[in-house]
Amino acid sequence: MMNSLIEALNLNKGDTSLRAIVLSAKGNVFSAGHNLKELQISSDLEKQKLIFQKATELMTSIIQSPVPVIAKVNGFAAAAGCQLVATCDIIICSDKSKFSTPGANFGIFCSTPGIAIGRSVPKSRAMYMLLTGEPLSAQEAYESGLVTKVVPAEKLDSEVNETIEQIKRKSRSVISLGKEFFYKQIGLNVLDAYRLGEEIMVKNINSLDGQEGINSFIEKRKAVWNHK
Amino acid sequence: MMNSLIEALNLNKGDTSLRAIVLSAKGNVFSAGHNLKELQISSDLEKQKLIFQKATELMTSIIQSPVPVIAKVNGFAAAAGCQLVATCDIIICSDKSKFSTPGANFGIFCSTPGIAIGRSVPKSRAMYMLLTGEPLSAQEAYESGLVTKVVPAEKLDSEVNETIEQIKRKSRSVISLGKEFFYKQIGLNVLDAYRLGEEIMVKNINSLDGQEGINSFIEKRKAVWNHK
Amino acid sequence: MMNSLIEALNLNKGDTSLRAIVLSAKGNVFSAGHNLKELQISSDLEKQKLIFQKATELMTSIIQSPVPVIAKVNGFAAAAGCQLVATCDIIICSDKSKFSTPGANFGIFCSTPGIAIGRSVPKSRAMYMLLTGEPLSAQEAYESGLVTKVVPAEKLDSEVNETIEQIKRKSRSVISLGKEFFYKQIGLNVLDAYRLGEEIMVKNINSLDGQEGINSFIEKRKAVWNHK
Repeated sequence: MMNSLIEALNLNKGDTSLRAIVLSAKGNVFSAGHNLKELQISSDLEKQKLIFQKATELMTSIIQSPVPVIAKVNGFAAAAGCQLVATCDIIICSDKSKFSTPGANFGIFCSTPGIAIGRSVPKSRAMYMLLTGEPLSAQEAYESGLVTKVVPAEKLDSEVNETIEQIKRKSRSVISLGKEFFYKQIGLNVLDAYRLGEEIMVKNINSLDGQEGINSFIEKRKAVWNHK
Repeated sequence: MMNSLIEALNLNKGDTSLRAIVLSAKGNVFSAGHNLKELQISSDLEKQKLIFQKATELMTSIIQSPVPVIAKVNGFAAAAGCQLVATCDIIICSDKSKFSTPGANFGIFCSTPGIAIGRSVPKSRAMYMLLTGEPLSAQEAYESGLVTKVVPAEKLDSEVNETIEQIKRKSRSVISLGKEFFYKQIGLNVLDAYRLGEEIMVKNINSLDGQEGINSFIEKRKAVWNHK
Repeated sequence: MMNSLIEALNLNKGDTSLRAIVLSAKGNVFSAGHNLKELQISSDLEKQKLIFQKATELMTSIIQSPVPVIAKVNGFAAAAGCQLVATCDIIICSDKSKFSTPGANFGIFCSTPGIAIGRSVPKSRAMYMLLTGEPLSAQEAYESGLVTKVVPAEKLDSEVNETIEQIKRKSRSVISLGKEFFYKQIGLNVLDAYRLGEEIMVKNINSLDGQEGINSFIEKRKAVWNHK
């Protein structure tokens, strides 16, 4: 499953007609995370290491994807499944969704999920999830900043589609430049971030689509993006 | 406009009767950010660089101001206008206010606004704003932590005034020391922050107004601040 | 008081029957923070330094405790008392609780409380608390992420007890490993955090209780933890 997701996330990276990626699931479990059977002592150490390297590669593929990755959640997202959701750029969920990191119940603390969740919600919520294993409801997940929006289940598709339409109206190369910079700057000291940001703004302005955007605005016409 | 704001923010820095700065606007747009006409290809590269250096200087002037800078928002704050708001120490807005980073619609991703906003709201909200350009309502901005308070438009002035009155009851030099330390420590490792914080607390206590504060508390009288 | 708390937090560190620590208070003030009388100019500089080093030691004892530390708040938590609450892993409060950092009213800016609070709530709320000294209600503290949950006062004990029961169902050593890693990784760059996290996951899996957890899950039986 992780290999399939990594492959799918990277498959059409260079195809300018690819504008957004939606991660969704069938049934009432979005993802329950790792398969515990793969982690028994019988499996050798190298295999275990590989499993968690794969998980990191999957999260990195989302962060480094040139297009926005949207989680469409309609059910339970647990453990590494919750990490997967928290790592997406935009997270839209139905009011039936729940989010948890119950690993400690099975002897495996959700340490790597905690990396994504600890950067998405306040510490008082992240530690509650990790230490008790208790789920957040969709509403609590919204109140904690984990998800972008909560909608009734029957409106989930239309909400995600509207989000995609908003992204499609923009230049792919501009979105890609901006997304890459966001994740780069967020780990920096604020003044270093501004120094780098100034350069990125000038680079953006002088790109083909940067100039097309400004010109179309001034000429009061619809922009025609090159996307490159 | 940026030059005027920078000048105004720095003008009376040393005047101890200056106790707070309020940024507000006339009309139903708080600020729409940069003037896109200044960023056309016809303008040379050096001018473009200067524009974004100015923006950084403006944000830095807010952060480094010795007095609290309060955004009083009653309308739309977009792009660098949203960055300006997010950079203020305290943000009080009316329920009619909206906040957006729609730059990508015009080919210019709000990369530098994202520096301030990414440090003010959870990633799931920041990325939604940046990638879709869609606004947050005042209530959503409150729920995302972007603003301190939302009040009905007719109560905006009184809420801001009460906030200023609270600040005026305190020592200017104590507020200034504390504000400077807050922004210094927030980028540090928590243990390094505490080491530095211990020194700042001792420095604060042994200042004129530190001792006046303690003595007036013990003597059950109103403090008479020196402000220096 | 700080000495007593530090001693109590560290006393039974190695006792595997200790599973969680609850900080609570009698009366309607959880904690008002430092005793200002200790900080008068008459007291020497070395004593003042020691007081703030003690406070850091207290906060560090919470962070480094091998078991979850839960704040049970039913009243006012102010200044270093608010810092104490914000530093706990899980914070459950009654709807009568309030949270403030009013030090600047007494000439002493809550600089060290701001270290904990600035890492717990959005900047727009932390700066409001620090610069005005005004309290957040329990509900506002929840909306700002400062507290995990707000419950009616009469349900405070049962909510805290349920939380402890959830923790007791897990392995102490797994909880301890996970808590330690959470605070270690949160200060790291996200990719460095994942590299370290991969190692921690493999270590966790190959621990006694890691394997017991997985085996009990696969064998559909209740886990019997070793806790070591």
